[in-house]
Amino acid sequence: MASLKTLYDPNTDLGNALHTNFDVDYVIDYRFATTPKPQAEAQFVKLIQALNDVGLTTEVRNGDNCAVLVFVKVASDRHLEAEVYRSRVQDWLYGVRTAAPEKEMQKALTDEPVTEAERLRLAYLLITKPKNEGGAGITPRTGEWKGVESIFALHDHTFNKRWIKELTSKYLLNSKDLVEIRDRFGEKIAFYFAFLQSYFLFLIFPAGFGFCAWILLGQFSALYAIINALWGIIFIEYWKKQETDLAVQWGVRGVSKIQHKRPEFQHENVVNDPITGEEIKVYSPVKRLARQLLQVPFAIAAATVLGSLIAGCFAIEIFISEVYDGPFKGYLTFLPTVILTTVMPTLSALLTGFARKLTDLENYETQDSYEAAMVQKIFVLNFITSYLPIFLTAFVYVPFAQVIVPHLDVFQLAVKPFAENEKQMTAPKIGFQINPDRLKKQIIYFTVTAQIVNFALEVIMPYVKRSVFRKVKEVQADRAAKKGGSPASPTADDHPEESAFLVRVRNEAELGAYDVTSDFREMIVQFGYLSLFSVVWPLTGVSFFINNWIELRGDALKIALETQRPVPWRADSIGPWLDSLAFLSWLGSLTSSALVYLFSGDGLGPDGAPWNIKAWGLLLTMFFSEHIYLGVKIAVRTILSKIDSPGLQKERAERFIVRKQYIQESIGEEAAGKAAAGGIAAGEKISRNTLEEEARPLKVHGTAEQKFWQRQPSQAETIAVGKQYIAKAAPNETKETKKEL
Amino acid sequence: MASLKTLYDPNTDLGNALHTNFDVDYVIDYRFATTPKPQAEAQFVKLIQALNDVGLTTEVRNGDNCAVLVFVKVASDRHLEAEVYRSRVQDWLYGVRTAAPEKEMQKALTDEPVTEAERLRLAYLLITKPKNEGGAGITPRTGEWKGVESIFALHDHTFNKRWIKELTSKYLLNSKDLVEIRDRFGEKIAFYFAFLQSYFLFLIFPAGFGFCAWILLGQFSALYAIINALWGIIFIEYWKKQETDLAVQWGVRGVSKIQHKRPEFQHENVVNDPITGEEIKVYSPVKRLARQLLQVPFAIAAATVLGSLIAGCFAIEIFISEVYDGPFKGYLTFLPTVILTTVMPTLSALLTGFARKLTDLENYETQDSYEAAMVQKIFVLNFITSYLPIFLTAFVYVPFAQVIVPHLDVFQLAVKPFAENEKQMTAPKIGFQINPDRLKKQIIYFTVTAQIVNFALEVIMPYVKRSVFRKVKEVQADRAAKKGGSPASPTADDHPEESAFLVRVRNEAELGAYDVTSDFREMIVQFGYLSLFSVVWPLTGVSFFINNWIELRGDALKIALETQRPVPWRADSIGPWLDSLAFLSWLGSLTSSALVYLFSGDGLGPDGAPWNIKAWGLLLTMFFSEHIYLGVKIAVRTILSKIDSPGLQKERAERFIVRKQYIQESIGEEAAGKAAAGGIAAGEKISRNTLEEEARPLKVHGTAEQKFWQRQPSQAETIAVGKQYIAKAAPNETKETKKEL
Repeated sequence: MASLKTLYDPNTDLGNALHTNFDVDYVIDYRFATTPKPQAEAQFVKLIQALNDVGLTTEVRNGDNCAVLVFVKVASDRHLEAEVYRSRVQDWLYGVRTAAPEKEMQKALTDEPVTEAERLRLAYLLITKPKNEGGAGITPRTGEWKGVESIFALHDHTFNKRWIKELTSKYLLNSKDLVEIRDRFGEKIAFYFAFLQSYFLFLIFPAGFGFCAWILLGQFSALYAIINALWGIIFIEYWKKQETDLAVQWGVRGVSKIQHKRPEFQHENVVNDPITGEEIKVYSPVKRLARQLLQVPFAIAAATVLGSLIAGCFAIEIFISEVYDGPFKGYLTFLPTVILTTVMPTLSALLTGFARKLTDLENYETQDSYEAAMVQKIFVLNFITSYLPIFLTAFVYVPFAQVIVPHLDVFQLAVKPFAENEKQMTAPKIGFQINPDRLKKQIIYFTVTAQIVNFALEVIMPYVKRSVFRKVKEVQADRAAKKGGSPASPTADDHPEESAFLVRVRNEAELGAYDVTSDFREMIVQFGYLSLFSVVWPLTGVSFFINNWIELRGDALKIALETQRPVPWRADSIGPWLDSLAFLSWLGSLTSSALVYLFSGDGLGPDGAPWNIKAWGLLLTMFFSEHIYLGVKIAVRTILSKIDSPGLQKERAERFIVRKQYIQESIGEEAAGKAAAGGIAAGEKISRNTLEEEARPLKVHGTAEQKFWQRQPSQAETIAVGKQYIAKAAPNETKETKKEL
Repeated sequence: MASLKTLYDPNTDLGNALHTNFDVDYVIDYRFATTPKPQAEAQFVKLIQALNDVGLTTEVRNGDNCAVLVFVKVASDRHLEAEVYRSRVQDWLYGVRTAAPEKEMQKALTDEPVTEAERLRLAYLLITKPKNEGGAGITPRTGEWKGVESIFALHDHTFNKRWIKELTSKYLLNSKDLVEIRDRFGEKIAFYFAFLQSYFLFLIFPAGFGFCAWILLGQFSALYAIINALWGIIFIEYWKKQETDLAVQWGVRGVSKIQHKRPEFQHENVVNDPITGEEIKVYSPVKRLARQLLQVPFAIAAATVLGSLIAGCFAIEIFISEVYDGPFKGYLTFLPTVILTTVMPTLSALLTGFARKLTDLENYETQDSYEAAMVQKIFVLNFITSYLPIFLTAFVYVPFAQVIVPHLDVFQLAVKPFAENEKQMTAPKIGFQINPDRLKKQIIYFTVTAQIVNFALEVIMPYVKRSVFRKVKEVQADRAAKKGGSPASPTADDHPEESAFLVRVRNEAELGAYDVTSDFREMIVQFGYLSLFSVVWPLTGVSFFINNWIELRGDALKIALETQRPVPWRADSIGPWLDSLAFLSWLGSLTSSALVYLFSGDGLGPDGAPWNIKAWGLLLTMFFSEHIYLGVKIAVRTILSKIDSPGLQKERAERFIVRKQYIQESIGEEAAGKAAAGGIAAGEKISRNTLEEEARPLKVHGTAEQKFWQRQPSQAETIAVGKQYIAKAAPNETKETKKEL
């Protein structure tokens, strides 16, 4: 990271352009390479008009490769302020804010300044919201806006540089850092960093304890499994609290209730809401449910396809490494890995594409529900590709190898060209020895090697790609310049003082969008290895601990350099990933106990031999493990729920202030009136006089009810009469007491 | 029920007194039988003063047996109205109401009249709330208020009579009936009736299906078990929705957040809240947790004590009925029943008392948390007493009888006096035949006989007791009158026009308090039989269906006649019972599958003999059953969550109105201002003129940023420049197209 400067500024001649964004809020990359000219022009006019109609100022400049770049900013400060205020009032109406914003707009905005994330979010909404909700209704790459390739904000490179520098020079993020991320990139990304940070901190325990367990307890330790499961429970329950807390502190609690309509949503009917009179677009939930049910065959198909690929490669690998005994064995062992690494990504991409089609088909009304449905499907796919190989080794290969291995002869085909004779390819009928290290090696592969490879693919690879790509572009530009300049060179019309800036913007236009979901997915899958299989290799925690320190910085670098600046969306939680975490932790209680039961005692089953396993013993272990897990989970949740959190405290405090204000404003007079309203002279003295009054015959009149309440018109009389009654009833007792004496 | 009139008015001479309550809100039964006279008087004075100080009017009359009855009503209508308004504002502040009440109090009260339940609740709170919260701070039977035996409202007998008549003459309660119950007895009791009603309606299915299953499938049918479990899931998930719905409709959603402090709560410290500055009384949560942990030994002890009693009696019973073969066998069989019916209630009462002590010790701050903790403990006790006998039969007696029965000789002692020889008391070493009908008989006992007995104990018995008690009192009074009247006769000072009323009030003062918890408990335990064991005897549902029709009416009768009028507390759910329901339903997935596996095939195990059971088969069945259950539960919950409910619709509508109003009030001007604030003349025509303007050299000045945005100062210019760019870039393409042609 010493070369941060060079890493950051590959084109030093752009240096100056990195310090200003020319007040641009968003850049719209409009492409017309495949559109006929008149249509392209008409669309462009429409685009500009739509933007101007909602109060956005536009400037247009040339882009690379048949594109123009439309620069957009909110036309006036007043317009922006009105948008901010409107959004804050909406928050209050939906219960996201406890207190209503100041009635006086300017004061409200001075009290609570507009953050960059807030401004960019609202500007983005102005551009993309449907027309009937007051936006320009521009949806990239869809329908009439097919030419709009992307809408992106410009990076604040001064901030980015400082941010990356800060991150790489400190061990931990504090809450100030998280607030900074939130103010720049929005709560959704801030939640990712907060989660990653909490997870990283929590990993200290499995790293330390795992290391000790590795030295002292060895693998398949029941103690390790129990403590690891407990750690998982505490982490998840803690995060749930932390999540709420952060949401309150960031003022976004309940923000998921404010849903953004998906422009792609296709309604069946427009119904007038019987109550509100609002027009609502509806789509039959029954139809959607029917389409959602397609997920079941999809999951089965995905499991079958991926499962058979994995199982096939796995079987070939076992056959080659443990049965085959001919030439080229050393190379042939890599055959299944080659098959997997070539076929798997394609297959995964295919299935992911299919999952997206399926989710599109399910036709969700809101962005959130669409994303949740997509996350669910992605999780299923990831679950299969990430964990199935280990499941196969642990629960199929080890217990059943002796049954299966003799049947692996079917894979002779794969090695036939190399084998010298039949015997080299024939499984021994008896005496086959399973390889007890296979499981551990696999875990190490997934938890160390794969993590490093992933990081390289995710952060380093795009950097290299980008550098090469730019070099190529430069060379091309040079060549073109030598030839006398192509007529369509995008830089031709650039104003000299803007030209560096425009080069930079054109570069940013080429970058991909940042997808926080894939980063989340990576972490959740990682947590899964820890929860499901770390009992095999207790050092897992150590590996993840180191990895995640780098991961956090790598992700920051990715956002800052390798993707377009993300739209700062809000969120009040990490969303559906929490369920995935809980599911993996719960499943861990089953797999860990099963692994311990199957392999404890030097990986050879409780009785010394891996085959001598009692099915009922395994089931009973898993049964108890699961139910103890569920019980402990409830207990931990209950205990944590008792602990107060700063966020909830803050919320309570705000509510208290609202209450106090309201009572002061409108109930104050009532409360004052109350004391007098009692209707009785409180504290009236019981004088001889009033007692004597009681002796007077009562002058009661009116209905029976009125008479009833007039018999003792004052406190004094009630007391006197009561005393009389007590005196009358009590003497008997005194007499009796006397008698007894 | 034909004799409702006689049942209702046992003293026809009180007939007239039943028609008026003399505007009394509450009656305080102040007793001084064991207090020295001066102290009794001082306490009484203090009581009256405390009541008057908070704006309550008092009248005092003589009570039975060394007691005075203090009649209380809110002194003035204005005072009551202020209280109602204050309470409604508090509701709004806590988010229970969506809309703030009208600022003008009188209008607010006219728009939404005060219900009887609301008035009585607030009057009760005025009497019992601590002094610093504006109440009189009177806590019956505690500390300085030891003499206050009870605080009760008077029954509205005119309503009660009509209500009982209505209930007994219709099959189902509709929502109007529930609202009526709510307006009279408060939401907490209304929720009980709503739950009972929903449960009753849902029972139609298990009754019908159970009957068919009984005829067609026989006992231990897997199909019955599956459908029964599914029914349980749907019922619980439906009720959860229904509960929320009712809470919204009744305007009490979230009311559980408004907690009433327990007067018995003992604080350790008074802390100034750092934020609100309010003084809060705190008790260390760690200490409470430590005390809560006492529940674990308590549960173990209770399970051991009750369990060994039940297991002992069970063993004796088996010994006598299946081993013993001597004289008096017919009578001796009843021995364990006799032991159980005599010892069990005492033991239960003892343990319940102990549970209450434990809950007191846990020192909860609020009434709700206290009750929830108590309910939890009661549930554990009930679980043991209700289900353990059946668990023993199903999972100990049947699978292990051959192992256990030979050891039952230890119970020879119990029958020794009657046996003629040793052989009559010796268990056969081999060939012992288990009694397959025992389990079914037991279920029938618990689901039919016990329900009837319960009903008798609960409703009919108190009625008989009360009648006898009154007769005795009348006779005593007659005798006293003949003797010339005792000086302390409470009726001596009664005004003639009040005397009938006072007799009635004295009678009501003798009644017990209504405890909705025990009624809930009964229903939950009943649901447990259906969920856990009905696979043994599918007619269970039929029995419960019939029972619950009567139960609902019986409970109404109990409230109207046999208890004091309950304080109309609010609630937003059935509280902790929902968890008990979910737990029982989940446990049912385990027991039902186990029962089916163990007994299917004529109750003799899957292989025809009850002993030939594979442990792993049983465990695997239970494992799958449980996980399928959990999966289906999530699916049902998801599907139900998609269905809109009238309550939530109502809430949305209210929120919409609030939003609309607020926007009209304060954002209206802003919104109007917005159109003008755009800063651009939208829709400006692109005329030849403006296009020509573009040709002029740009006069830009200011900073780089300002210059950037001044290059295309109007829409027209942006469009023109953009078109130029497009034209420049596009021709290339056109040329290429031409070349291609």
